[in-house]
Amino acid sequence: MTTPSDATTPGRLPRWENAEVVDCDVRVAAPSVEAVQPFLAPRWQDYLAESGVRTIGSERYPRLPGTSGDLTALRDRLLDRWQTRYAVLNCGIEISSIHNEDWALAMARAVNDWLAAERLAHDPRLRGSIVVPPQSPDAAAEEIDRLAQHPGFVQVLLPVRAEAPLGKRRYWPIYEAAERHGLPVGIFAGGTSGNPTTPVGWPSYYLEDYVSYAQAFQAQVVSLVSEGVFTKYLALKVVLVEAGFTWLPGLMWRFDKNWKGLRREVPWVDRPPSEVIRDHLRLTTQPLDEPEDPQHLVETIAQLGSDDMLMFATNYPHRQFDSDEGVLPSGLPPEVEQRILAGNAHDTYRF
Amino acid sequence: MTTPSDATTPGRLPRWENAEVVDCDVRVAAPSVEAVQPFLAPRWQDYLAESGVRTIGSERYPRLPGTSGDLTALRDRLLDRWQTRYAVLNCGIEISSIHNEDWALAMARAVNDWLAAERLAHDPRLRGSIVVPPQSPDAAAEEIDRLAQHPGFVQVLLPVRAEAPLGKRRYWPIYEAAERHGLPVGIFAGGTSGNPTTPVGWPSYYLEDYVSYAQAFQAQVVSLVSEGVFTKYLALKVVLVEAGFTWLPGLMWRFDKNWKGLRREVPWVDRPPSEVIRDHLRLTTQPLDEPEDPQHLVETIAQLGSDDMLMFATNYPHRQFDSDEGVLPSGLPPEVEQRILAGNAHDTYRF
Repeated sequence: MTTPSDATTPGRLPRWENAEVVDCDVRVAAPSVEAVQPFLAPRWQDYLAESGVRTIGSERYPRLPGTSGDLTALRDRLLDRWQTRYAVLNCGIEISSIHNEDWALAMARAVNDWLAAERLAHDPRLRGSIVVPPQSPDAAAEEIDRLAQHPGFVQVLLPVRAEAPLGKRRYWPIYEAAERHGLPVGIFAGGTSGNPTTPVGWPSYYLEDYVSYAQAFQAQVVSLVSEGVFTKYLALKVVLVEAGFTWLPGLMWRFDKNWKGLRREVPWVDRPPSEVIRDHLRLTTQPLDEPEDPQHLVETIAQLGSDDMLMFATNYPHRQFDSDEGVLPSGLPPEVEQRILAGNAHDTYRF
Repeated sequence: MTTPSDATTPGRLPRWENAEVVDCDVRVAAPSVEAVQPFLAPRWQDYLAESGVRTIGSERYPRLPGTSGDLTALRDRLLDRWQTRYAVLNCGIEISSIHNEDWALAMARAVNDWLAAERLAHDPRLRGSIVVPPQSPDAAAEEIDRLAQHPGFVQVLLPVRAEAPLGKRRYWPIYEAAERHGLPVGIFAGGTSGNPTTPVGWPSYYLEDYVSYAQAFQAQVVSLVSEGVFTKYLALKVVLVEAGFTWLPGLMWRFDKNWKGLRREVPWVDRPPSEVIRDHLRLTTQPLDEPEDPQHLVETIAQLGSDDMLMFATNYPHRQFDSDEGVLPSGLPPEVEQRILAGNAHDTYRF
């Protein structure tokens, strides 16, 4: 994030007067321990009181404030201003950093029940992602099964900074459960796995930390394809949330080229990785890594080679764009813009 | 690398009939322990014999053969076929994986002296990079000082997979020595630092390992700029060797945007990172991450926003291109092609 939220986000563009807008990434505040406490099983309410847990997650670098949990503000500042048809709420709580697996599952369940009761039940435009403990794939699958029939949940959410590349077989129970229920898996910019945040060790500054999220997303895309996740789970869609996308064309070229030379190592990848990526990967639009020349961004979007991949998001209340115009590049063909604003989201999520 | 070398590399293109060609990345075989033994000080010759060291470096994943040390082959297959004016020899020996710092320095010195005696002395077209132990920056600076007056050495070489981000202050003695002698620092696709090769842990396949080198290069560019290396060493040039470059435009956009929001964290970065990058960073052309549509590569090269950054390389005897045409994209303006083929190398290296 470059700047924190202030009172409002910019609104929809005049040229979208009659367009349907689906917002595929709205951040919900990681609720306080007190907020989720009523949703915990009695055993865990006692545990909370006795252990003195005050917060979860970690702060490696000082950050600016970013998420706000207020429902009224969310309606006024975002949904009404944007005339949003649907908004997908992503709760970036750091379940993956809880070392006690039972406690991690209990917290994930409580957060999901809090989200359903305190948000999804209060506004028909809101949808939510299922938070799961990625460190316990079987428990994660169980939590997906528990909530899959709830019409408010439309996605399973994993942090990009995982303990291991997400294509690894240990994670497959999560994909199996998601596919079984027709839910995409969202991978969001978050996670505190313990691995250094770059492949060359820990950087010094939050600037480096944030810029390097794109590398974690690149590694996860390569892993998911190379390990054959999309060969096994043919109907699975993966949504990269707050990942940027300008790095994707170059990655597809590099990946295709090296796959040609090394494909015997991964015989289950039986077509060029870029084709697999275009069929199975979706990406939210904020933050836009904007070049000085807006035409360069239009070129890059065309280089993706598919109009089905990008899905509009404000990333509210993170404020990634300074003006109404900064929300999407201008100069896109209208039919592409429409797919980005709503069409691709409808193809991906069960609203 | 996608395919190993076979008998020949393709030759220069007919349209370059009168062009000067400088080859900025020719790999020299990491010589056997026996080959460098005569160049070791007596103490280390004894150490070698007594300790039974047979090899250095490591093999995390099975690899295809790649480097060849034969001078005759190098002349016949590369220099004569290409009518190369100068070729920069890069020796990818894994000095950084030697834990004994004195032994690491001794090996670096021996490899450099081997390179000077067995290669540089035998052909006026050959130039070399100084191998240094990055884990011992003061010793590395000493080795740079020792060889800086040798006209055959034109660059200092570091592996991209370092113990820590290369912008960190511990590495600054290396940059100070390089700048003092007017030598660029080359960062090449290699290194066995111990960090997982992706920011999300160890991948399973060499395909992933090779594709993910681009992430390590991205992290190093962000680190070098963020830590202020180019603010301190104004004349320093850094050459990324075998890094690809299609990831760079998107990285510059993302980096500039987040720097605008977070620049107070790094006040010494007093202009957009992309400007610093354009002034100080150079990249060799092989491997080309080729898209299906060659026009996309021409667009990407234009998106770099500078004609001074790319430098031609064959990456011999790695064979990254299958045909003569695969060596550079077609459709580049002739003056840009000329800068890539030789002009930028002349501005970067003291030949």
